[in-house]
Amino acid sequence: MVTNMEKPYVVGIDIGGTNTVFGIVDARGTILSVGSIKTQDYLEIDDYVNTVCSNLLPLIEANGGVDKIKGIGIGAPNGNFYSGTIEFAPNLPWKGIIHLADMFTERLGIPTVLTNDANAAAIGEMTYGAARGMKNFIMITLGTGVGSGIVINGEMVYGHDGFAGELGHVIVRRGNNGRICGCGRKGCLEAYCSATGVARTAREILETTQAESKLREIPADQITSKDVYEAAVMGDAVANQIFEFTGTILGEALADFIAFSSPEAIILFGGLAKSGDLIFKPIQKAIDENVLAIYKGKAKLLMSELKDADAAVLGASALGWEIK
Amino acid sequence: MVTNMEKPYVVGIDIGGTNTVFGIVDARGTILSVGSIKTQDYLEIDDYVNTVCSNLLPLIEANGGVDKIKGIGIGAPNGNFYSGTIEFAPNLPWKGIIHLADMFTERLGIPTVLTNDANAAAIGEMTYGAARGMKNFIMITLGTGVGSGIVINGEMVYGHDGFAGELGHVIVRRGNNGRICGCGRKGCLEAYCSATGVARTAREILETTQAESKLREIPADQITSKDVYEAAVMGDAVANQIFEFTGTILGEALADFIAFSSPEAIILFGGLAKSGDLIFKPIQKAIDENVLAIYKGKAKLLMSELKDADAAVLGASALGWEIK
Repeated sequence: MVTNMEKPYVVGIDIGGTNTVFGIVDARGTILSVGSIKTQDYLEIDDYVNTVCSNLLPLIEANGGVDKIKGIGIGAPNGNFYSGTIEFAPNLPWKGIIHLADMFTERLGIPTVLTNDANAAAIGEMTYGAARGMKNFIMITLGTGVGSGIVINGEMVYGHDGFAGELGHVIVRRGNNGRICGCGRKGCLEAYCSATGVARTAREILETTQAESKLREIPADQITSKDVYEAAVMGDAVANQIFEFTGTILGEALADFIAFSSPEAIILFGGLAKSGDLIFKPIQKAIDENVLAIYKGKAKLLMSELKDADAAVLGASALGWEIK
Repeated sequence: MVTNMEKPYVVGIDIGGTNTVFGIVDARGTILSVGSIKTQDYLEIDDYVNTVCSNLLPLIEANGGVDKIKGIGIGAPNGNFYSGTIEFAPNLPWKGIIHLADMFTERLGIPTVLTNDANAAAIGEMTYGAARGMKNFIMITLGTGVGSGIVINGEMVYGHDGFAGELGHVIVRRGNNGRICGCGRKGCLEAYCSATGVARTAREILETTQAESKLREIPADQITSKDVYEAAVMGDAVANQIFEFTGTILGEALADFIAFSSPEAIILFGGLAKSGDLIFKPIQKAIDENVLAIYKGKAKLLMSELKDADAAVLGASALGWEIK
């Protein structure tokens, strides 16, 4: 991160399927101002960008004006760092390839870069959070899906095409018995370790066993990962079994990721990560049992240090410091 | 690669369990002189280094002397780039941690760096072979074991500890039915796609089916991957099935590797890679069928362009150009 007394702030814009959140951030990761709009209200990309700009500019003015902003970072699904585009994002209103970074650069006169949300989370963690000072780490985001951002030799891994780091879609259960994933394939990590994966595990265990559980009080198709967490905290054996199962699968996958880039740390972010020891213990156990001998005891397993509410804007904003 | 008219050559030293080969190499990858000694003849590391030096120095002198050498690169099993050490290499005579790079630097007065053999192969391919000009690729070496070297953003991936890139030891068959691997774990890629893995597949198919095959003329415990290749070339159905099986497992694993670093190419090196379409077709099919949609048709599958006999010395030598 290159701080600059002349340009002490960056802007972060996080584009989600429901909300778009934007904020002004300083070098210590303090969010000075924040605003948001509903992403789905703007079916035309021009309307959308204009509305973000007209909401964002007053915040920029209130903090010293455009001249104080080093850059704008955008985190967006299917975001491509190299081209500054969003490409065929299924949960956003705009189809095809959208040259979003250029649109902001032109309208605001501030250099703008863009990447996918999990990569933004990783850069945020490196700039303001648990990965400060680290040159080699892997960020895993556990939400509705499972995302990842990989940092090697101090640089984000974008790959040849800008789309590297889809570790939610490595196959953890091969063959026809693998769970169907949202990507259309079978057996992906995401199908087991996302919030929906956890809920599905709950249903499968409740349907295939007679074990007593508080979770039986909830209609099977309405159980969420939050319900599982709350039951586990109260000592529910089935809920604990669900965490064991989820953590074991994730830990086995992480052991393979370690063989790839031998990171200093693996950092977990998102709802599931906040379940603490319930999920960290089975993950750590599975790593220890599955990792190749030369890696044993080396990679730290850490929880994100960014607050949930701030993480998306902080992550996106951190990209702004990287602009050369 | 920084070429230098004053220092136009590098030295490559490849340390194998049986032989140590060393040579003088120019910027185009021509080996000007080459020599070798038997690794196992030297139980003391000092004797070994002295013998390599006394055999290597005349070659250096014949090519203009020490002043013409930019650096020495060493490829060795369990080699650590960061520390220049060989650490607990099971197939070498010297136990524990050996500070090999320093020993050569001191004796010859030439800067020396070291990495493992698969990483050296990747750097060799980037410097002289199929990966020239590539910034993102993965090298897979298919030999007695399965090794790998990963290049991202134009840099070798060594990881936090110097040992990154052990893709032969990701788990491709989970659970107790996975084949035992030389590393002591079960289900590693290496247990299926190394030369010994191929031979084991042959035995398994011959033992569990009644299919006719030329391979039945060979005692089951003596079948080698070369026998399988020769039978397949003659149209043997079982031999072809073995290649299908091996290529499918490797292709499935490569599809996962692509999700990690989205490389421009995956380059295969070693005996199995030389089987051509017999192995490339099932690998490519498995990649196409298993890779996430956004990566489809992107990563090229290539064969190494370095001659087998030269590759080890060339790979090690290429490290010499990287010295700063």
